[in-house]
Amino acid sequence: MYRIALDVMGGDHAPHATLEGARKALEAHEDLFLFLVGDEARMRPLLETHGIRGGLAARTELVHAASVVTMDDKATAILREKRDSSIRVAAKLVKDGMADGVVSMGHTGAAMIASMKVIGMLPGVDRPALASVLPNMKGRPTVLLDVGANVECRSEHLVQFALMGSVYAEQVLGVRNPRVGVLSVGEEDAKGSDTTKMAALTLKGLDINFAGNAEGRDIWNGAFDVVTCDGFVGNVVLKSSESLAEGILRGLRDSIMGSLRSKIGGFLIKPAMLSFKKKLDYAEYGGAPLLGVRAISIIGHGRSDGRAVANGIRAALRACEHRVADRIHTAMSELLPQAGYGTPGEGDGAE
Amino acid sequence: MYRIALDVMGGDHAPHATLEGARKALEAHEDLFLFLVGDEARMRPLLETHGIRGGLAARTELVHAASVVTMDDKATAILREKRDSSIRVAAKLVKDGMADGVVSMGHTGAAMIASMKVIGMLPGVDRPALASVLPNMKGRPTVLLDVGANVECRSEHLVQFALMGSVYAEQVLGVRNPRVGVLSVGEEDAKGSDTTKMAALTLKGLDINFAGNAEGRDIWNGAFDVVTCDGFVGNVVLKSSESLAEGILRGLRDSIMGSLRSKIGGFLIKPAMLSFKKKLDYAEYGGAPLLGVRAISIIGHGRSDGRAVANGIRAALRACEHRVADRIHTAMSELLPQAGYGTPGEGDGAE
Repeated sequence: MYRIALDVMGGDHAPHATLEGARKALEAHEDLFLFLVGDEARMRPLLETHGIRGGLAARTELVHAASVVTMDDKATAILREKRDSSIRVAAKLVKDGMADGVVSMGHTGAAMIASMKVIGMLPGVDRPALASVLPNMKGRPTVLLDVGANVECRSEHLVQFALMGSVYAEQVLGVRNPRVGVLSVGEEDAKGSDTTKMAALTLKGLDINFAGNAEGRDIWNGAFDVVTCDGFVGNVVLKSSESLAEGILRGLRDSIMGSLRSKIGGFLIKPAMLSFKKKLDYAEYGGAPLLGVRAISIIGHGRSDGRAVANGIRAALRACEHRVADRIHTAMSELLPQAGYGTPGEGDGAE
Repeated sequence: MYRIALDVMGGDHAPHATLEGARKALEAHEDLFLFLVGDEARMRPLLETHGIRGGLAARTELVHAASVVTMDDKATAILREKRDSSIRVAAKLVKDGMADGVVSMGHTGAAMIASMKVIGMLPGVDRPALASVLPNMKGRPTVLLDVGANVECRSEHLVQFALMGSVYAEQVLGVRNPRVGVLSVGEEDAKGSDTTKMAALTLKGLDINFAGNAEGRDIWNGAFDVVTCDGFVGNVVLKSSESLAEGILRGLRDSIMGSLRSKIGGFLIKPAMLSFKKKLDYAEYGGAPLLGVRAISIIGHGRSDGRAVANGIRAALRACEHRVADRIHTAMSELLPQAGYGTPGEGDGAE
């Protein structure tokens, strides 16, 4: 049985979308136990509404949290005025060994701070990385990280992200000997910023399948399995890609509606188009794992619906099954000394 | 009559694609005069092959250049061992007042250095910016800059790019009162790097339509007309977008070929799909203007075919007609003192 703490109050459509997602996940996974963290008085009557009863309810426990981090709050609010917020209480359950992981669709920064400061970081990891699993043109996943946790990064952070991404691709996604690249502006070694060049130089000396610089196109063409970048670039690429994909499908639909001939064609391709759209749909992935944390932490889109929440919980379960945190820990212990960073210490202490 | 110097030897398919593009452009624009710069002995017999004869040939002049910058050369080679390269000779024609602008599909870095160091920069502009004109979801253009000229930027560079992009959008693309944004990781002022935050702060004080931070999605959704960023992010976004668009259309085609029903549908939507693809096609745009240079400089894709070259030449003609360099010069003189950068000086001297 895996125990996941769900931040029921986090997200644009909370608590309804989160509770709906909880029910779906409980139905789908018999080995799932959920801590439902939030305003208890508000959640209790909603359990019935969302069909969390009987055997499903038996695998849940309501945990009260008096406040919620809103989009107007600073991420660090959870450490001070909002210590009783749902995301912090959920993270605390993990820290105290009650839960194996936490899932939140709320304030990304707050979920990150809760993961870093309450659950704590793995030894040897300076910064956590939000990893996005993207479908590439070879029909396989490409792990892009960081996609938003760290706006500014030094080369050693890019190196750590690359190592964590490689472990994740291999252990969770089943990619054998993942090809790892540093995102840059050209494939030649001389191309890039000082930070990316230095990261590439270090990665060359490590016992992973490092394949040099990746360019923007390599995020999608399947030439690399793992692409490391700072959270600024990663966030911009992710958001621009979501928007572009949406725009292309919409533009195509408008083109198709322009003539009777193509309207009929459009009707005929509709099932194919829907199945394809599903592949690009963020909700299919549910959430991005925050790698480098001592336990499992999944951070989802604010606009997640019930399906996205359920998929986020599924992502947490998978990460638990694959013991992601342990495996990153082991890999970092083996690889980091090669990078000349010395033996990892005790990591950032949890509060 | 506008006089453009074409780097005939630059690009993956040179000199054939460049000469084919030259013919197409000469046919399409009666007010065009072309300096064809390259290996004279090689070019002369090819003129006939590519149909540049009679009245068309009368509007051309062959200018000999003994060498060509290859992808293995450093960009700065043009200042030393390759002073006789086609790109440098073409830029020299502009510097000497013989030509109004230069077009190259060759080594991007070399074309940039030639533009900066041979033609020279406008006063008040520290760095040139490669501006990409992207089709957004509102069916209008979005100017993204810089897309590759400057890997690392300070805030004043982002400010200058924003001003130049605003002038370009208004004067060349006909966007009234263009909405300008700084690319960042969130729309709130507090989001971003120190560099983007400082740039936003400066831009707020200037007499342009500055609308704050733009996110990745705003590159495509039409919320902004001009988006300024460093060349690292811009290059990654541009390359990843090209690749994603290609991948989506290919993926969709594969989905469609999966059943007889959708195959028939696919046949029916083919014309609509082709017309839509054309909108996304880089070759339609021909090349990116390098803004901030004392004259017109258009830098195209290495893999340009004849059509892309012709469109690149057309872009140069348009920029000439709209006196882009003069207008940027005027705008910078008016706006930069507001930014507290003082009155622009004499600019980087040409060599």
